[in-house]
Amino acid sequence: MASIKPSVPKGTRDFSPVEMVKRNYIFDTIKSVFRKYGYQQIETPTMENSETLMGKYGDEGDKLIFKVLDSGEFLEKANTIKALKDLLKLVSETFEQRQLQESALNQISKEQLDSFKSMIDSAKFGQNEIEQKLSSFINTSLTSKHLIKEISEKALRYDLTVPFARYVVQHQNEITFPFKRFQVQPVWRADRPQRGRYREFYQCDADVVGSDSLLNEAEFILIYDEALGKLGLKDFTIKINNRKILSGIAQIIDKADNIIDLTVAIDKLDKIGLDGVTKELIERGFTEADIEKIKPVILLQGTNAEKLQSLRQALSQSETGLKGCDEIETVFKYIESCPLQTATLELDITLARGLNYYTGAIFEVKTNEAAMGSIGGGGRYDDLTGMFGLKGLTGVGISFGADRIYDVLDELNLFPTASTQSTQVLICNFDKEGETYGLPLLQQLRRQNVNAELYPAGAKIKKQLDYANNKNIPYTVVIGGDEIETGLLTFKDMASGVQEKLSVDEIVKRMVG
Amino acid sequence: MASIKPSVPKGTRDFSPVEMVKRNYIFDTIKSVFRKYGYQQIETPTMENSETLMGKYGDEGDKLIFKVLDSGEFLEKANTIKALKDLLKLVSETFEQRQLQESALNQISKEQLDSFKSMIDSAKFGQNEIEQKLSSFINTSLTSKHLIKEISEKALRYDLTVPFARYVVQHQNEITFPFKRFQVQPVWRADRPQRGRYREFYQCDADVVGSDSLLNEAEFILIYDEALGKLGLKDFTIKINNRKILSGIAQIIDKADNIIDLTVAIDKLDKIGLDGVTKELIERGFTEADIEKIKPVILLQGTNAEKLQSLRQALSQSETGLKGCDEIETVFKYIESCPLQTATLELDITLARGLNYYTGAIFEVKTNEAAMGSIGGGGRYDDLTGMFGLKGLTGVGISFGADRIYDVLDELNLFPTASTQSTQVLICNFDKEGETYGLPLLQQLRRQNVNAELYPAGAKIKKQLDYANNKNIPYTVVIGGDEIETGLLTFKDMASGVQEKLSVDEIVKRMVG
Repeated sequence: MASIKPSVPKGTRDFSPVEMVKRNYIFDTIKSVFRKYGYQQIETPTMENSETLMGKYGDEGDKLIFKVLDSGEFLEKANTIKALKDLLKLVSETFEQRQLQESALNQISKEQLDSFKSMIDSAKFGQNEIEQKLSSFINTSLTSKHLIKEISEKALRYDLTVPFARYVVQHQNEITFPFKRFQVQPVWRADRPQRGRYREFYQCDADVVGSDSLLNEAEFILIYDEALGKLGLKDFTIKINNRKILSGIAQIIDKADNIIDLTVAIDKLDKIGLDGVTKELIERGFTEADIEKIKPVILLQGTNAEKLQSLRQALSQSETGLKGCDEIETVFKYIESCPLQTATLELDITLARGLNYYTGAIFEVKTNEAAMGSIGGGGRYDDLTGMFGLKGLTGVGISFGADRIYDVLDELNLFPTASTQSTQVLICNFDKEGETYGLPLLQQLRRQNVNAELYPAGAKIKKQLDYANNKNIPYTVVIGGDEIETGLLTFKDMASGVQEKLSVDEIVKRMVG
Repeated sequence: MASIKPSVPKGTRDFSPVEMVKRNYIFDTIKSVFRKYGYQQIETPTMENSETLMGKYGDEGDKLIFKVLDSGEFLEKANTIKALKDLLKLVSETFEQRQLQESALNQISKEQLDSFKSMIDSAKFGQNEIEQKLSSFINTSLTSKHLIKEISEKALRYDLTVPFARYVVQHQNEITFPFKRFQVQPVWRADRPQRGRYREFYQCDADVVGSDSLLNEAEFILIYDEALGKLGLKDFTIKINNRKILSGIAQIIDKADNIIDLTVAIDKLDKIGLDGVTKELIERGFTEADIEKIKPVILLQGTNAEKLQSLRQALSQSETGLKGCDEIETVFKYIESCPLQTATLELDITLARGLNYYTGAIFEVKTNEAAMGSIGGGGRYDDLTGMFGLKGLTGVGISFGADRIYDVLDELNLFPTASTQSTQVLICNFDKEGETYGLPLLQQLRRQNVNAELYPAGAKIKKQLDYANNKNIPYTVVIGGDEIETGLLTFKDMASGVQEKLSVDEIVKRMVG
């Protein structure tokens, strides 16, 4: 039987050794910066109770959550299926009752006809009832939406934020607040897979709960700066906005529902000019008067300080808007004390991600070296744990888009060429005797913490050297009859091709030094 | 509305910061040893196609695999449900047909009675057919076992071995053989949760495919020795056996099916003596003649070399058995060249795990310092990838039982007390001014790669010091009015309670040095 080549589910991926080294490089770098800033790692289970996740991501999100079937006889225990079986039994019984009536019909006398008719009448009632039940059952009970609650009580993690909120509430008595945690784990979404969008992907989040200090916002900017700088990015922008500024703008023109329309239009100023933006805003239902009021917002430009000043003027009638300006300014002051090494920090009032939940700062990070969407984002949410009944705990957090960062580093050739994770030297041999001779060298190298391999005896030298090349092993040692006789082994730098004759001790020294 | 305290699904766990540091310590240690021996990391997706997993772990295993519901309208697309809906429609139609007949009955004349009866007869056929269909449907189609294939095409990884075999076959053209890979990822089993047994737990595997050299077996013994030694274990035993020896024993007494019974009985020799073992073997269906033949096997003792010699004698009539002895001896010779640092290596012919798939070496590791089952195991399987159509690739691998190792290290107090992963110093302050004063110190420390935190202004000093204690932060700096005036900050060793007045530079020097 010819078997089909096995595959992975669409939207999911295997990671090869080469990819894993690169992924570990990204994750390890980000984790080390999180730790430097006092963030502690936690992990939560892959599966959460469905009630923990459902309803937290909107109707569209609910549909994208992968549900796990209850184990065992999931169907037999479902009430819907029990009801269906009862219904089918009723149908069977009704049929049998009818069959009795039919056999009665075969022996019918004129006198029995009336009583038979009344039997029919009473049976008809049951029959109509069954028909109604069947129809209602098909339309309301026998649907995915209804049945799912009876056959699935667990689901795969959809993001790291909701499980974190659940964690905080569940473990509130063990936690010291402010609680600074980071979490690097995969999440799953039943999205339509496409280039760069996967059904399983890692999220890389840091959040702090229980502190409303804007120092936290400033530190997240520093974390982005340090981590992305460490990864070799040389030109990237950390955009910051504040939900309260957006609320302020909406307030002064009384158009809270159209704030997204507004930011989308303003964002096009560079491309289509003030006239274009005005035209678009009018098409989207804003009035000339509205536009006059927010013109300073549309034309916002200059340094962050200049932008803030214009905003304060435009929002002078909105207490909320001014509060937003204050918050942004405080963050800027922190950053002045702790200047950024690489990143550009930019106040961008068109930044409107996460308006459903963010209540203060909003962040987004973009690289200017490659065409790529945002490689990070986050913000503050004033009531993170309210959904699990713990009110009034404020939180702020950021996320790194690991897959996109991977693509950017690949495109810009920023991954380190040498990895300390891979084998540093391969000991090759012509035969069993060479293998035996190589064992003590192998042990000496490993004792000195050099990643080393001995190719098992029995393969041609070419195959062994190919193995070294394919695994990117930088050095090889070849042990043949001559080498054993002289005690001088052939040591080869695989990149340059240079060969030397070295003793065991010299090789160890070379590899350690 | 009072909300219920949220929880995780039974058999799954959250890992707190303290637990994560300990878990990372175990995983990082094992990974570093895997890498030192030339093993490369891969990762496979959490979800595999059901056909990849089902049928690979026996019927019991199949039941323990968590199945993921297809996303979207999973029920509506299932053929079983389509068939059911058709059936219910047929029932409805039959009922309607019957209703017409009944209204005919109300206007019945003697002449029409015959034609009515024949209508009944023809309808009865359809009705019987429906009843049959209903009954067969309920019994065969409307079952979990049947429906599951139509509503779930993906499942959660049950172990790391089958996904690895799938990986090797899928990527065979990109892989350089021998392929030495390690993999540290969670797996899921719908087992009944109990103490020490979880529904989600990490496996920690290394395997090599495409090399039949017994050097690999020897290196796995060295890996166990080095990794568990590094973790601080001082007394543990690596047991080794060979499937071919067990086959040889079965061969000489012609009892291949009873090999487990045999090993279980022999294992009790220390407790119940030769008479006890003999009695038990006879109860389990072995004859006196059998027992006479295998007496040297039952009484096997002495050094590994002595055991091997006795085995060779006992198995002299079994080619397979002698091959097993040769293999074990070769492994022992390798270990003589590369002596173990900590572990005891023991030939144990009662070791019979994985007999369904292992064809050569069998390993198991036990600590002698704590009461705990095996903390590791593995073996060789001659046809790892055959299940996916790639025949003749031999593999050998081992696994570390991370959860049990965690419990052992905890019990023996072997986790390092200080972790480089946690915050090293917390800067405390009395007010906003102190916070501002602390910012440059904070930045200097972080520039020198010291994990450092500044407590946001506005909290009492006691709260800040409690925070340091709860997070096990070893040093604190306190900045008040005096400190700002003199430039000498209060530096405190939290363990000893010793306080000093130090300048910013001195503090940085102290923390870096």
